[in-house]
Amino acid sequence: MLILHGDIRSGNCLKVKWMLDLLGREYRWVEVDILAGDSRTSTFLSLNPAGQVPTLVLEDGRALAQSNAILVHLAESSRWIPTDAWERAKMFEWLFWEQYSHEPYVAVARFQRAYLGWSPDRIESRLMERGHAALARMEAALAGDTWLAGGTGPTLADLALVAYTRVAHEGGFDLAAYPGVRDWIARTEAAFRIR
Amino acid sequence: MLILHGDIRSGNCLKVKWMLDLLGREYRWVEVDILAGDSRTSTFLSLNPAGQVPTLVLEDGRALAQSNAILVHLAESSRWIPTDAWERAKMFEWLFWEQYSHEPYVAVARFQRAYLGWSPDRIESRLMERGHAALARMEAALAGDTWLAGGTGPTLADLALVAYTRVAHEGGFDLAAYPGVRDWIARTEAAFRIR
Repeated sequence: MLILHGDIRSGNCLKVKWMLDLLGREYRWVEVDILAGDSRTSTFLSLNPAGQVPTLVLEDGRALAQSNAILVHLAESSRWIPTDAWERAKMFEWLFWEQYSHEPYVAVARFQRAYLGWSPDRIESRLMERGHAALARMEAALAGDTWLAGGTGPTLADLALVAYTRVAHEGGFDLAAYPGVRDWIARTEAAFRIR
Repeated sequence: MLILHGDIRSGNCLKVKWMLDLLGREYRWVEVDILAGDSRTSTFLSLNPAGQVPTLVLEDGRALAQSNAILVHLAESSRWIPTDAWERAKMFEWLFWEQYSHEPYVAVARFQRAYLGWSPDRIESRLMERGHAALARMEAALAGDTWLAGGTGPTLADLALVAYTRVAHEGGFDLAAYPGVRDWIARTEAAFRIR
């Protein structure tokens, strides 16, 4: 059986869990409490030397890391990866952008406020500015398209980006300023059966 | 003809250029001087709202961003993307890891030292520590495998990671401590005809 090592509060881990649930795959969830240091034990590091969750262990014991790489692997040949070459390229553009220009700000600010309990004034202003820039970019993209990759249905890009966008308020980002993003969150949650 | 907008000093841009050269694709290079603010003009932002290079403009005018997404698009059906599902998944793992755990440290330290002219003591110690952690992880991976994705030939993972690793010394990272990485750089440069 597949084993998913993850922290249940992490959007990166939840997006993989949602995909496994959606595909009806059998798997076992192993909770890795990042704050308690569970991802830094020698046992965990032997599984994933990068010390990052999620880490998916396949039936034969091989381990795969990086949430978006795991999504791509699990969703191969599914309708969540466009068959059109251009839409697929745009999907990948958003997947890489998510990890480079969204997660390091929106998710990190949320982690510091909601988990570490930091007060708003302790959060670096750079994090908030770049997080808002990421949300503004999504708002602009969604003004013209229903789904991020631009096609007629949702893709992994929507799944990957909804994970931290839907909880952005926990990081101090008021989504009232991004009505298009809010509508898209509801659409995406419905499409991927996220509760 | 394809048009590649890029800063010639950027590893993210060079990796796309190397792939275009390798594939023998005709393209025009448009220099975007990041330090001079070229990626923040309204003309450039209308092309790529994220204001990032490289940006590849296709024959029909559509623009694609994110270096690793561009590589995946250009290299489709080539031998640089493994046909084996596991090796392909590992390739993607490294591509996402590169942008999340390597580039933000190794490339940023290099940018600050080599381009902004900062002295070594001005570079955040966190950047150097995480950059060294990334190099150590590569050294460990390459102790067991010739190529990062684990197969018998080089993949996009090697191309993406060599871009900033081969110039890591410009960021103050002494590669003498990583002999496996140094050998791999030479192999990878030869495989992708990087001069």
